[in-house]
Amino acid sequence: MIKPVRSTTVDIRVRYAETDAMGYLHHAQYLVYFEQGRTELLRACGVRYRDLEERGLFYVVAKVDVQFRAPIRYDDVVTLKTTTERLTPVRVDHSYEITRSGKLLTEGRSTLVLVGRDGRPTTLPDDLRGMLLGVADDSPLD
Amino acid sequence: MIKPVRSTTVDIRVRYAETDAMGYLHHAQYLVYFEQGRTELLRACGVRYRDLEERGLFYVVAKVDVQFRAPIRYDDVVTLKTTTERLTPVRVDHSYEITRSGKLLTEGRSTLVLVGRDGRPTTLPDDLRGMLLGVADDSPLD
Amino acid sequence: MIKPVRSTTVDIRVRYAETDAMGYLHHAQYLVYFEQGRTELLRACGVRYRDLEERGLFYVVAKVDVQFRAPIRYDDVVTLKTTTERLTPVRVDHSYEITRSGKLLTEGRSTLVLVGRDGRPTTLPDDLRGMLLGVADDSPLD
Amino acid sequence: MIKPVRSTTVDIRVRYAETDAMGYLHHAQYLVYFEQGRTELLRACGVRYRDLEERGLFYVVAKVDVQFRAPIRYDDVVTLKTTTERLTPVRVDHSYEITRSGKLLTEGRSTLVLVGRDGRPTTLPDDLRGMLLGVADDSPLD
Repeated sequence: MIKPVRSTTVDIRVRYAETDAMGYLHHAQYLVYFEQGRTELLRACGVRYRDLEERGLFYVVAKVDVQFRAPIRYDDVVTLKTTTERLTPVRVDHSYEITRSGKLLTEGRSTLVLVGRDGRPTTLPDDLRGMLLGVADDSPLD
Repeated sequence: MIKPVRSTTVDIRVRYAETDAMGYLHHAQYLVYFEQGRTELLRACGVRYRDLEERGLFYVVAKVDVQFRAPIRYDDVVTLKTTTERLTPVRVDHSYEITRSGKLLTEGRSTLVLVGRDGRPTTLPDDLRGMLLGVADDSPLD
Repeated sequence: MIKPVRSTTVDIRVRYAETDAMGYLHHAQYLVYFEQGRTELLRACGVRYRDLEERGLFYVVAKVDVQFRAPIRYDDVVTLKTTTERLTPVRVDHSYEITRSGKLLTEGRSTLVLVGRDGRPTTLPDDLRGMLLGVADDSPLD
Repeated sequence: MIKPVRSTTVDIRVRYAETDAMGYLHHAQYLVYFEQGRTELLRACGVRYRDLEERGLFYVVAKVDVQFRAPIRYDDVVTLKTTTERLTPVRVDHSYEITRSGKLLTEGRSTLVLVGRDGRPTTLPDDLRGMLLGVADDSPLD
């Protein structure tokens, strides 16, 4: 059985199309990277986000903030660390750190809310709760 | 009653995020503009593409080609002309021209196929056929 | 002479490519809209951001936060209001509101820093300062 | 010394932001993948495209065509094969194939032209020509 994890890292190489006329990774693209980080964090817990959606469960972004400390360029390989800061049956808070060679380039945080097909908030089913939180220890990750 | 039209034009101002490190409109973004042109061409015929999808009808892109003749830059306002070249019950061919101050910058063509919710080709219902082709004159637009 | 303004609004129609599999405007795309709002706010003051860059002046995003209150869908026309909350010689704070039919859908804020070609912070030249702040009244917009 | 290669493959996992309301990989995004394929094909020859640009050499897309044979969905891992079909001192033709589990999903072709900082066509310097074509065998790759 896969044990729930709180953090994962993923290496991302910046595509040319993701840069702007300034030559840097465009600031909107960071949110796309963060989303990729969340997908991989779920996968590390044995959950495929695609399967959630097929069951009619959708995590929608309620808020996000980003601090851009140093620019990132085309072809750079950066490391994104995604951490679950708090998980409840209806929402989840994540934090993000992007580094290159150990230097912190970007920080971010987000809050997602779980909704059903009707777009209304719903709660995480028990099986998924177990996979994300652990079965024996039912306490929130924080 | 709205008369079917074969061509429409739309003016588009290039956003900063749509450029790349070379300072030009990124070549993938042209396909996004073409898609916007198709939406507006349908609207000029009185058809909202969003309503098509709510009825379970989806136009999927089967092929596309683009010739990039001259670059386009951030904050440029370009004119996109979208033309229906051929319309049958299951597919539609469009051509595209992007100009600025009358100078031709880009040409493109695409073929779309109409599919249902199951992803299989289907045929245009009679009411939509009438709006896109005209009621009295049922001959294809070409 | 164009008088400096603190706020502008721009109407934006959501493109199909800007939506995701959930059927909503993707949350990263909001930052692209905010950027478009800033371009138009500068233009309303008689300043073209493209000209700034040709003079070697670049506004880079230092931080941003967004609260997503209600979803936005393909083909929706939304109104983005962009406001300069604070302008100093080296940085500018903006706030953003997206509404549809008067209903507030999204709120955001950002801080931009002015840098030169070397990527180091620099100060706004006097002529631009005059256009953005007014000549007679040199006090910051806040 | 690295031997010039004609083809490389790269595996790509589809990000959520790259899908559209239909639930499929948006057709414009394929051009972004193709570009990633070209970057990796150059790298396999020992050439970093970023270094080309720092030397004032830019490959701009002159034309592209794509045939979409079967849809691709979020979280799918697809294999992109990029092949240099023809290389001359001023232009390069590539072909592309996207497959999943051996099934052909997409085909494409592009022509790129080498330009200098002034945007005018230029020729590949000898050192790069050697890396891309081989030193002993100076014949074009086709």
